[in-house]
Amino acid sequence: MNNAENLDFLFHPRTIAIAGVSEKINKFSFGLRFLESLIQFGFKGNIYPISPTGGEIMGMKIYKSVKDIPGNIDFVISAIPARYTPQLVADAAEKGVRAIHFFTSGFGEIENIEGKRLQADIIARAKAGGIRVVGPNCLGLYCPSGGLSFNADFEKVSGPVAMISQSGGNAAHCIQEGNSRGVFFSKVISMGNGADLNESDYLEYLVHDDETQILTAYIEGVREGRRFLRALKSATKSKPVIILKVGTSESGAEAAVSHTSALAGSNQVWEGVLRQTGAIRAGSIEEMIDITLAFQHMLPPHKGNKIVITGIGGGASVILADEFTNAGLVLPKLSDKLRKSLIELYPSEAGRIFKNPVDLNNFEGPEIFFKTMKALDQCEEADLLAIHVAFDHFGLISIKDKEFMIGMYLKLIGQIKKEIKKPLAVILHSYSSIQMRKLAYDAGKELTAAGFAVFPSIQRAAIALSKFIRYHEERRTAGRIK
Amino acid sequence: MNNAENLDFLFHPRTIAIAGVSEKINKFSFGLRFLESLIQFGFKGNIYPISPTGGEIMGMKIYKSVKDIPGNIDFVISAIPARYTPQLVADAAEKGVRAIHFFTSGFGEIENIEGKRLQADIIARAKAGGIRVVGPNCLGLYCPSGGLSFNADFEKVSGPVAMISQSGGNAAHCIQEGNSRGVFFSKVISMGNGADLNESDYLEYLVHDDETQILTAYIEGVREGRRFLRALKSATKSKPVIILKVGTSESGAEAAVSHTSALAGSNQVWEGVLRQTGAIRAGSIEEMIDITLAFQHMLPPHKGNKIVITGIGGGASVILADEFTNAGLVLPKLSDKLRKSLIELYPSEAGRIFKNPVDLNNFEGPEIFFKTMKALDQCEEADLLAIHVAFDHFGLISIKDKEFMIGMYLKLIGQIKKEIKKPLAVILHSYSSIQMRKLAYDAGKELTAAGFAVFPSIQRAAIALSKFIRYHEERRTAGRIK
Repeated sequence: MNNAENLDFLFHPRTIAIAGVSEKINKFSFGLRFLESLIQFGFKGNIYPISPTGGEIMGMKIYKSVKDIPGNIDFVISAIPARYTPQLVADAAEKGVRAIHFFTSGFGEIENIEGKRLQADIIARAKAGGIRVVGPNCLGLYCPSGGLSFNADFEKVSGPVAMISQSGGNAAHCIQEGNSRGVFFSKVISMGNGADLNESDYLEYLVHDDETQILTAYIEGVREGRRFLRALKSATKSKPVIILKVGTSESGAEAAVSHTSALAGSNQVWEGVLRQTGAIRAGSIEEMIDITLAFQHMLPPHKGNKIVITGIGGGASVILADEFTNAGLVLPKLSDKLRKSLIELYPSEAGRIFKNPVDLNNFEGPEIFFKTMKALDQCEEADLLAIHVAFDHFGLISIKDKEFMIGMYLKLIGQIKKEIKKPLAVILHSYSSIQMRKLAYDAGKELTAAGFAVFPSIQRAAIALSKFIRYHEERRTAGRIK
Repeated sequence: MNNAENLDFLFHPRTIAIAGVSEKINKFSFGLRFLESLIQFGFKGNIYPISPTGGEIMGMKIYKSVKDIPGNIDFVISAIPARYTPQLVADAAEKGVRAIHFFTSGFGEIENIEGKRLQADIIARAKAGGIRVVGPNCLGLYCPSGGLSFNADFEKVSGPVAMISQSGGNAAHCIQEGNSRGVFFSKVISMGNGADLNESDYLEYLVHDDETQILTAYIEGVREGRRFLRALKSATKSKPVIILKVGTSESGAEAAVSHTSALAGSNQVWEGVLRQTGAIRAGSIEEMIDITLAFQHMLPPHKGNKIVITGIGGGASVILADEFTNAGLVLPKLSDKLRKSLIELYPSEAGRIFKNPVDLNNFEGPEIFFKTMKALDQCEEADLLAIHVAFDHFGLISIKDKEFMIGMYLKLIGQIKKEIKKPLAVILHSYSSIQMRKLAYDAGKELTAAGFAVFPSIQRAAIALSKFIRYHEERRTAGRIK
């Protein structure tokens, strides 16, 4: 049963008015940024600029008030100074607008009491006028299926991941970090102060959103603790929920109050809440994407927690073993049978390590490589596999030759996907020069598109896989999934 | 007093012979890699290829034995199979060679007992012949001032940082990670099994090496525990020592034995040793470079531990506060006086946070920016400063405009160096797209060249600065530095 309010209307408006787009503004002006972003992103409905000065911009008529626009207006974006917002709300209510996103800041988050008064005022006016409010003090909505974006560079492709963010900057970073690594979004909500619609509203809605399979959130603090706990408990029953909870230090909590007026709450309480509800706690936006990638691509959902790792590099193998163990993962010992079958594949043992991690030391051609991967795929030791590429560990090879050699090796890794049955994580790490960074970036995108979870460092792979595996273990233990 | 053996002769040979360079080898052949690397890197002395087949390569005569080469040979690099190495040592001893680097593996690190026997054999022969051995099973030496490198792409510029590494891959990664971030090296030693010269020999030598001001090491395990402890105690008295100790997990320790035959020792013991000696423990190669950058550029050595942070981004400010606090750093509250003087600089408080971190929210031009930085430089609250740039947090701006705007902002940051007195760390973080990665990479190099310690993430800055500050605090407490 779904008692949550259906917020679909927010994400699929037919018409949008933007307040704060005058003729004279410069290119970094915020109202203009919203206008251009929607047009370039491909919003299909009508868009209307508003400014008391009137005039024209980009060939479009600027209306002096939302009331003057012909036809219905579903959604208003406000990029005007805070002091003018009460009038905007009054006009919007008269017009029958359904929702306003206030990019405008200078409300509940500033120390000056006038900001809090103003916020209470616009929220009261909006309620009376039947208008829902996104923000204030935020970047608003990104929803590719609705043609909504505050930045035209974001991917136009929809994906299964939703994000609720109390920071616009972190929302923007999450979208770009995700997009650059093959993670695509259903809906991203930069919600700012959450003075009307808050984190609980969005969470309750997204649990039932068919477009969304994985939920993520950047939380500084919540307005309605009990309601949020209830919403979170309900959410984790059907979808993985990954939360970056910040403001846990004294300075961080103070910054959070000034940023979005959020009360952060103690770290202990949050640890308890997240554990109790089965939500996954991420340590950063990047880690949130790492964990998301594990959920998207470490398929089929594994049956156990044992990982066998392979790749090239002795020093890397030692670090892999440490980091994976420290993250709480289990690296099983290889049976003598498996060890023998691997050793037999190779011309010599010198420089190689036939333990776990398996250090192949050197590339011996595609045939031996495929046989190695198939042997690991069929072995009883491993529930999951990982392969790593340590770009800078190939110490004797020039950058130019590395581009060729590692490029070829990465292509082969891409080809294994269809040959093996176990979930396989790919770790591309230790790339320093601009050429290797570029190679790793491009390969990461290609391998993710081929269906792999790709991680940019050993530690980040270990942490993401550990949280992913613990999530499934806890659910198996709890008997919710067999 | 210096009882350490002077190993200068290793790093400044006049002549080098390379065993394992035949006419028929392919371009990825190891002997050829060493030969080409030395030539392209600009080694000034004579280089002689050796192979029992004789012939010619790249216009150079290939000698059938080291004994056949005219004149003295100071240094031999062996890239031949392990079984031929006893003869090579015998020939080298006859020739009066001073040192051999065995790239060759298949010795003490492999499970087959024959490897251990062979290693004992060549070491005994070398000792008897007065030859010191680097390795076996390693990439050998990188020393720009001696014209030595196993890779011609490495920087030809010398710097104040030395590294001892039991992994060739990690040595190569460390050099490239350092070079790409403005860290240059005096000597890097990939020492492999350390069957003759081991970590203690190199450490004792580097403490007294005038080229070296900062010592770093990647350690899997040590051969002579007491001697190493003594050497480490002595080293930390005059130079900062940063150690990445691995093999601390069970799997990691097993991998270490197979990798370089090192006995890893328990993590607890190592924690104690590093604390007791005042060495700094790094968690990764990247972190080793992070900490090195703090030592190189956070000048003058600070007098306290209080950091004031500024930059643009509310969500980033909350994360900064959390990460810095979690790393044990102190973010002092700003006095009312300082807050007022900052607030007065800006046209409006909306969207800004005049706490610590100071969130400037938006760029208001160079003049206000310089005044802000000077106010922070002159304030009593801070011993050190940090400024951050959150590339992807500028959510409304297109990639193209970001390249322009952030590029300009980064240039201004570069210009502050000469205006302020306090050490200033620069944190470039949250860049996802390939364009922003490139911008951050180039800016990082430029800002490091301008004298800043530049860090690529909030967490990494927090950890490196915390370790750097704790190092100085402990030394102040111990009364060694006033």
